Amino acid sequence: MELVPGNSLITASPEDGRALAVLLARNTIRAIQPDVEVLRKSRGEYANDPDSLTSAAHVVSIEFATIAAANDYWR
Amino acid sequence: MELVPGNSLITASPEDGRALAVLLARNTIRAIQPDVEVLRKSRGEYANDPDSLTSAAHVVSIEFATIAAANDYWR
Amino acid sequence: MELVPGNSLITASPEDGRALAVLLARNTIRAIQPDVEVLRKSRGEYANDPDSLTSAAHVVSIEFATIAAANDYWR
Amino acid sequence: MELVPGNSLITASPEDGRALAVLLARNTIRAIQPDVEVLRKSRGEYANDPDSLTSAAHVVSIEFATIAAANDYWR
Amino acid sequence: MELVPGNSLITASPEDGRALAVLLARNTIRAIQPDVEVLRKSRGEYANDPDSLTSAAHVVSIEFATIAAANDYWR
Amino acid sequence: MELVPGNSLITASPEDGRALAVLLARNTIRAIQPDVEVLRKSRGEYANDPDSLTSAAHVVSIEFATIAAANDYWR
Repeated sequence: MELVPGNSLITASPEDGRALAVLLARNTIRAIQPDVEVLRKSRGEYANDPDSLTSAAHVVSIEFATIAAANDYWR
Repeated sequence: MELVPGNSLITASPEDGRALAVLLARNTIRAIQPDVEVLRKSRGEYANDPDSLTSAAHVVSIEFATIAAANDYWR
Repeated sequence: MELVPGNSLITASPEDGRALAVLLARNTIRAIQPDVEVLRKSRGEYANDPDSLTSAAHVVSIEFATIAAANDYWR
Repeated sequence: MELVPGNSLITASPEDGRALAVLLARNTIRAIQPDVEVLRKSRGEYANDPDSLTSAAHVVSIEFATIAAANDYWR
Repeated sequence: MELVPGNSLITASPEDGRALAVLLARNTIRAIQPDVEVLRKSRGEYANDPDSLTSAAHVVSIEFATIAAANDYWR
Repeated sequence: MELVPGNSLITASPEDGRALAVLLARNTIRAIQPDVEVLRKSRGEYANDPDSLTSAAHVVSIEFATIAAANDYWR
């Protein structure tokens, strides 16, 4: 499976970079747990748990830091 | 939905950068869990739990690190 | 409310930078939970829990990393 | 045992860098817990727990940040 | 109280930098919880809990990253 | 006790850097909890807990980021 969509960290804008950060995080989880049914059940749990949502946002923030640096912060 | 308000990491001041960091973190969570009713209930839980508040502040600190670097620390 | 006291990351010394890091972390939490009474109760809990103290110190360490970089490490 | 496959952080593409990030994280765990039977049982637990999956994705995101910097973000 | 011993991040060696990282983490916790009796009790708990020890080591690793950068990695 | 083996972050290769990262993390824990008997018992617990293993791998990833930067990523 593909871990980095488009095989590049370069994006046209911060918005696109943020969307890529979300995908990177998701794709890691799919690589570890490829069973779609387990993931669907997982989602039902963590999407309703405030701390799980914060943990997911935490991972996205780190992926985004890398992507933002790669794009020289779209300056 | 919009993940990065204004589609830019550049802000006029540290204060504005900090406010953007809070919004980035919130918008990730809304992207994962778009159901406003679930989020309202979540907020009632985590805003009263010291560890959940610290975890939220943790994510903001990472988002802010990226924004501060993007703005060359407003030096 | 003010998120970044003095609206600047530049401080005269590492000691001042560290104090700013503590304030940044606190102000995020106050922005998320503005109810002073809830915060006072929260403090009574986390200040007596070793893991909560470590989590708070964790956030301060990240805020400080940003402030230290902003000040070119006071070299 | 080998901790860094190929003894290099340089990869041909972001996709390869991401795969290396996953391996680095796995190899650390195998170095700490070399018992394959314990690891197989562990996997059965954390791969079905949403928070454990997020934690694993968290570690991968940090390994990837290092690898991406090493490769100057494949720019 | 003093948060940064010596009010400087510059140290003579990695070993001294590491010792400073441990002190920075400790001093944050003392600033949040100044009651020595509570801290002594806390220590008895977290020093016997593997996950608490890992969390403490986590904070030290971040403080050290900042100190190492400040010293240009003692190259 | 020694916190940084060899008192240097410079290593000959990524593999050696990774081994140093593991030692740095271990030595922090030994500095906080010097009682070898407690550590041995701790190890028996966390080495069999998937989340504890992930947390340990997390700390190693941060130590490695610092060491990799110190060595300019062995480029």
